[in-house]
Amino acid sequence: MDYIKNYIEENKERFLDELFDLIRIPSISSLSDHKNDMVKTAEHIKGSLIEAGADKALVFQTEGNPVVYGEKIIDANLPTVLVYGHYDVMPVDPLELWNTKPFEPIVKDGKIWARGADDDKGQAFMHIKAFELLVKTNNLPCNIKFMIEGEEEIGSPSLGKWCADNKPMLAADIILVSDTGMISEDIPSITTGLRGLSYWEVEVTGPSRDLHSGLFGGAVANPINVLSKLIAEMVDENGKITMPGFYDDVIEVSDEERKLMAEAPFNKEEYKKAIDVVELSGEKGFSTNERTGIRPSFDVCGIWGGYTGEGAKTVLPSKAYAKVSTRLVPNQDNKKIAEMFKVHFEAIAPKNVKVNVTSLHGGQGYVCPIDIPAYRAAEKSYTDVYGIKPVPVRSGGSIPIISTFEQVLGIKSVLMGFGLEDDAIHSPNENYPLKQFYNGIETISHFYKHFVEEMK
Amino acid sequence: MDYIKNYIEENKERFLDELFDLIRIPSISSLSDHKNDMVKTAEHIKGSLIEAGADKALVFQTEGNPVVYGEKIIDANLPTVLVYGHYDVMPVDPLELWNTKPFEPIVKDGKIWARGADDDKGQAFMHIKAFELLVKTNNLPCNIKFMIEGEEEIGSPSLGKWCADNKPMLAADIILVSDTGMISEDIPSITTGLRGLSYWEVEVTGPSRDLHSGLFGGAVANPINVLSKLIAEMVDENGKITMPGFYDDVIEVSDEERKLMAEAPFNKEEYKKAIDVVELSGEKGFSTNERTGIRPSFDVCGIWGGYTGEGAKTVLPSKAYAKVSTRLVPNQDNKKIAEMFKVHFEAIAPKNVKVNVTSLHGGQGYVCPIDIPAYRAAEKSYTDVYGIKPVPVRSGGSIPIISTFEQVLGIKSVLMGFGLEDDAIHSPNENYPLKQFYNGIETISHFYKHFVEEMK
Repeated sequence: MDYIKNYIEENKERFLDELFDLIRIPSISSLSDHKNDMVKTAEHIKGSLIEAGADKALVFQTEGNPVVYGEKIIDANLPTVLVYGHYDVMPVDPLELWNTKPFEPIVKDGKIWARGADDDKGQAFMHIKAFELLVKTNNLPCNIKFMIEGEEEIGSPSLGKWCADNKPMLAADIILVSDTGMISEDIPSITTGLRGLSYWEVEVTGPSRDLHSGLFGGAVANPINVLSKLIAEMVDENGKITMPGFYDDVIEVSDEERKLMAEAPFNKEEYKKAIDVVELSGEKGFSTNERTGIRPSFDVCGIWGGYTGEGAKTVLPSKAYAKVSTRLVPNQDNKKIAEMFKVHFEAIAPKNVKVNVTSLHGGQGYVCPIDIPAYRAAEKSYTDVYGIKPVPVRSGGSIPIISTFEQVLGIKSVLMGFGLEDDAIHSPNENYPLKQFYNGIETISHFYKHFVEEMK
Repeated sequence: MDYIKNYIEENKERFLDELFDLIRIPSISSLSDHKNDMVKTAEHIKGSLIEAGADKALVFQTEGNPVVYGEKIIDANLPTVLVYGHYDVMPVDPLELWNTKPFEPIVKDGKIWARGADDDKGQAFMHIKAFELLVKTNNLPCNIKFMIEGEEEIGSPSLGKWCADNKPMLAADIILVSDTGMISEDIPSITTGLRGLSYWEVEVTGPSRDLHSGLFGGAVANPINVLSKLIAEMVDENGKITMPGFYDDVIEVSDEERKLMAEAPFNKEEYKKAIDVVELSGEKGFSTNERTGIRPSFDVCGIWGGYTGEGAKTVLPSKAYAKVSTRLVPNQDNKKIAEMFKVHFEAIAPKNVKVNVTSLHGGQGYVCPIDIPAYRAAEKSYTDVYGIKPVPVRSGGSIPIISTFEQVLGIKSVLMGFGLEDDAIHSPNENYPLKQFYNGIETISHFYKHFVEEMK
């Protein structure tokens, strides 16, 4: 496969220059001031797709930011790969913590430093360059489509509808995504699972006004005491969530996959040291990686009520609040869980308070089977470049749009990520190692031929 | 006792004018702008004591606001009554909620409207006028001393030391205080107990920084979840505080006193309606009044941690905090309890978090036996004026200075309060019914002769 390495070597400076042009447009999706930058970036990507060899490329308007679509159909009978990525980036504040200007990319210490260097301009652009490589060297073995959106960092509010509206155009055998990471620069991994999410705000009301804790304390239920008790009851002494029916739809992961997952290097002492805790905890019978990867969790993300200022104020407060969340695993339905919790929490509340539960947010989990052709093809591609087989990793996080693709388009996604832990995505001094950028282009370029072979 | 009624009737307008002069000085102890007003008020009270018939009256400087002392010693062999009151008042904001100007007293609907009308200028001034009545009509049957402080609303920080420094001067058989209330204008009551207090801030630290709740949730202890569990464990299903040894020093109240207490009118439905709760709760085996009066309680006064803004932010926070308090009953030592809780709470905390407990505040409880001469004298005085025997009431609140008197001076206090529930002390539109003002003077005037008789 010398044509891959050679093409990258011959064009590496140009690839970088082109990525820098893309990064320089400050496409921050959460700030309305940057509305024009979003359109400008979308047009820029459309141009890149055409130059790379797309037969057609279009900028689709949505209710939010535009989606860029491009395709090259070489034979309707061959498999089709749909590449997903996003051109929007996170805000840059606090600006004073950056060592360089976030939208003026530079290379230093073998890394690209800029907002979007990794997430996701850098990773998405690798796909455009791999596509160019395959087209220009006459090695593209299948059809390819691109959808690059501009709203991922604000929860992809327009993309689900856009997919539904353009389903025939988006028909494909697999969706290929580079918006995640790998274990380390020497240990490739593929994210095979993402957790879903349900998130609520809980309001507990005791008396209608704050009371004197001396005059009433002991005779009137205190909403903070009650809320604490309700939260405490949600998880039992074995780390199991106590809501009846909560685990009904949880798919137990096979021993085989658990064995593969366990191969991922994990240093408990380093992990504890990194977050400065002396002891880890969680559901009995599962390892740390399993607890975050294949098992649901229950976390209170915020709590407040009563007097929180300096010193001592004696008050029996009227209200207490909490933001509570569960991370869900594939096959658990976030809408079902959202309703289940509301009913359960209101049911276990004692009559001496009023409890109100509001669902704030939710998303489905996702799982990519490790025996489908696209996964096997990805596995081989990493092996070609990194010399070892990538580890399948279940991530504890959520990328809701991935499960939306499955629901709306009926297509699985393979998450070929190249980001590293140190890339500081969403933070000041985001960076992306040049090695990962070029290795990524190389790995993706290998994918297509393996995929076509696996599909035979 | 026509001389009492007659003297009050003849001087009632002047009494009111004099009280208004006292109220007009805005002696807000918590605001340093009013430092001069404190001195002015102290001097004003000194003048009132001299005019009323004191042999001597002095303004004592302290590290804070001055204390006014006055005395009339008629015979060293006769009993001595020490009257306590305070001339400082609470702040007046929010000013826009007042119907009249707080320091321009007026009479409307049979009530005096002004800051301090009840708490405590109105109530303290009744004592000065009763003293005047007894002196001018030649009916003072014993020695009388006054200590009127200017820091009660900020926790009496200087008075304990001042008492210790002036112990011989303050020697007395009983302390008489009017700074509490009675059940209603037709149902007199005497506060015979005050609860003590221990108050802590609790800090629970999980990981050293906020973590992504998806990537870590389920494997790392969440400090809010843990804090909730620890709080929940503090009180059992019978409403009993679970700290080992916590009840060791609690004195069980005699059946006789519980029977007397139960005579206090209590309408459960009205009580629930007033605070808008559908069910009351608390320690099993005790009535509502007992739960706040003779039993300790455990209340969380405030709690905070994690994300408390709008919408959903998925975070596994580093820290969670709570302000927790217990109300204590007489004979429980607040310092012992403060230490007991710290040791207990840190001991029950799991190893996956760090817990830090800081004691913020504390005060001893107080109990006035109902069989001492001064209590019986007070009982008779109310009966003289209101026609029925006052009900002994254990208040759930705390007035730390009362237990300080007992500790420092070794003198019991009798709490002859005349405030009513509607007086809005500490709130906008504070008021004090004229009827209570004059009945108070009358009741206090009766007290001295009963007291001397009881002491024989």
